[in-house]
Amino acid sequence: MSVVLLAHEQFPDRAKTAVSILRYGDTEITAVLDRDNAGKRVGDFLPDVQDAPIVAGMDDVPACDELIVGIAPIGGGFEDSWRPDVRQALERGCDVTAGLHYFLEDDEEFRRLADEHDSELWDVRKPPADLTVSDGVAADVDAEIVLTVGTDCSVGKMTATRELYEAARDRGVDCGFIPTGQTGIMIERWGLPIDRVISDFAAGAVEKMIRERGDDHDYLFVEGQGSIIHPAYSGVTCSILHGAMADKLVLCHEAGREAIHGYEDVSLPSLPTYVDLYEDLAEPVHETNVVAGALNTRNVETDDAARTAVADYADVIDVPATDPVRFDIDDVLEAIL
Amino acid sequence: MSVVLLAHEQFPDRAKTAVSILRYGDTEITAVLDRDNAGKRVGDFLPDVQDAPIVAGMDDVPACDELIVGIAPIGGGFEDSWRPDVRQALERGCDVTAGLHYFLEDDEEFRRLADEHDSELWDVRKPPADLTVSDGVAADVDAEIVLTVGTDCSVGKMTATRELYEAARDRGVDCGFIPTGQTGIMIERWGLPIDRVISDFAAGAVEKMIRERGDDHDYLFVEGQGSIIHPAYSGVTCSILHGAMADKLVLCHEAGREAIHGYEDVSLPSLPTYVDLYEDLAEPVHETNVVAGALNTRNVETDDAARTAVADYADVIDVPATDPVRFDIDDVLEAIL
Repeated sequence: MSVVLLAHEQFPDRAKTAVSILRYGDTEITAVLDRDNAGKRVGDFLPDVQDAPIVAGMDDVPACDELIVGIAPIGGGFEDSWRPDVRQALERGCDVTAGLHYFLEDDEEFRRLADEHDSELWDVRKPPADLTVSDGVAADVDAEIVLTVGTDCSVGKMTATRELYEAARDRGVDCGFIPTGQTGIMIERWGLPIDRVISDFAAGAVEKMIRERGDDHDYLFVEGQGSIIHPAYSGVTCSILHGAMADKLVLCHEAGREAIHGYEDVSLPSLPTYVDLYEDLAEPVHETNVVAGALNTRNVETDDAARTAVADYADVIDVPATDPVRFDIDDVLEAIL
Repeated sequence: MSVVLLAHEQFPDRAKTAVSILRYGDTEITAVLDRDNAGKRVGDFLPDVQDAPIVAGMDDVPACDELIVGIAPIGGGFEDSWRPDVRQALERGCDVTAGLHYFLEDDEEFRRLADEHDSELWDVRKPPADLTVSDGVAADVDAEIVLTVGTDCSVGKMTATRELYEAARDRGVDCGFIPTGQTGIMIERWGLPIDRVISDFAAGAVEKMIRERGDDHDYLFVEGQGSIIHPAYSGVTCSILHGAMADKLVLCHEAGREAIHGYEDVSLPSLPTYVDLYEDLAEPVHETNVVAGALNTRNVETDDAARTAVADYADVIDVPATDPVRFDIDDVLEAIL
């Protein structure tokens, strides 16, 4: 199984999905497509993830089983400059996977090429038709449910969840990962895109995943989405909070973030306010507590300053915290397990 | 314009939509279809709504412009025993409207008959394709936004919103009604079914309606949905709370309700807890307060006992309250306007 990641003109800083697959995916990445960086290697930018050559297009890829679109422009559309690569992948019999709002399956040319060459199109963001309302029973599974919750979008919930899951797994803990968004689904090759589920069924979709996996493990790490005070996405967050019936919460935040990204009129409330909001809102359905924190310090230059930021964060929310990418995760994991 | 309401075997107690249209709709109801009550009249059951004959089927309806399916079985399916009436309506050139999860438009026979006889099929619960995320700007409209919020589903939020809207209108207040569910949409002949919108766009759909109407009125009464602690539907509630950016909240409750309907393991928290949850959750996006209460006393037998229940409710949530169907609404309206 060899996979190619499409990340034209956006690798690595604006290619969150591609980078996460390089960091956390189990499959071998044959190449990254980025016409702006052709000739370089992944390792030139990111020393701590799987290395791979960067090439200009599918012409330069010798063999591949699957092409994954690893970027998503604002609005989630399909950019026509990607079409030649997707076309060539399908003509060569490769499967093509994407997490865009624009569905590959609804594109006539891609549909026809996939049929002709026996390739699969996987629109990760297209929920199945058989979803329904939550029964309010996620807490009945054997596993302890750990959910990441955030102060905003893009503060590192998926990364924190994944780091916690992998660290627990490396310790020999029997645990599973419940993906709720496109990147997590691509990494796990399974999951439901909660933000695309109709709102009546959003909690039910989370519950469905937990019921499918919850009796196979001692812990489930559920990837959170959005923020409970996000002007647009709070409903998704609330559905996950109540659908997951989490036993423990991990509060994720980015150092220096002061307002909701893209909604600068909405200032973030204080960190203890978030703790109260998440705990108080969860309690009538299933009591839970924020037991740890994850602080994303990507914008803090020195390790010293980042350590101070993490220590301050832990103080304010009164639980152990770390930056799970930059620093040790042990204390946080202790608080969870 | 004459309308027929289909409510077979469920009128009036399990025909919430049909009864609400009789109570609040502007159009003349020619007949109610209920084979179990054929020969009786609406007035035999409900003295305080528009009267109409009850008949066994479309055979007994002389003339009609539209047939509305005024009942919804659990699961929202279409019952095949309704098919002959819908078929006949379409063959006679009547439009047919329904708010089921099953879409009339996707039914081959109905689609074909509608085409042949130039009738319209309106699936109220099918959201349009052009929805998108909220910009967080609903508060910018000229109107004051009043939103009903609930302790549970089916406590009377739609009814309370409608009664407040009509009472304000009768006083000469320039106000509009923002419907978020199927019954409200059928009454207003306009609106978006928030529970069927994909979760990323739910707040945006509420905002879209408020922007369309918000500069035409001094007040908008927004119909709430679900409850912020409902195990399945809280995401819908949260999306409406943040999407509407309400200036004032009206807390709706049913006397005697102790657990979430259908989720008896989930006890309702105390009423002040609800007030805090709604206000605290709204605040970071748009500060708001619970300024009044609506108590549904349909299960309280005597008026005296109902008056006591309302007084106790007002005491506990510390704002004026009423049962807007049973009692005077003036004090509550004063608190809102």
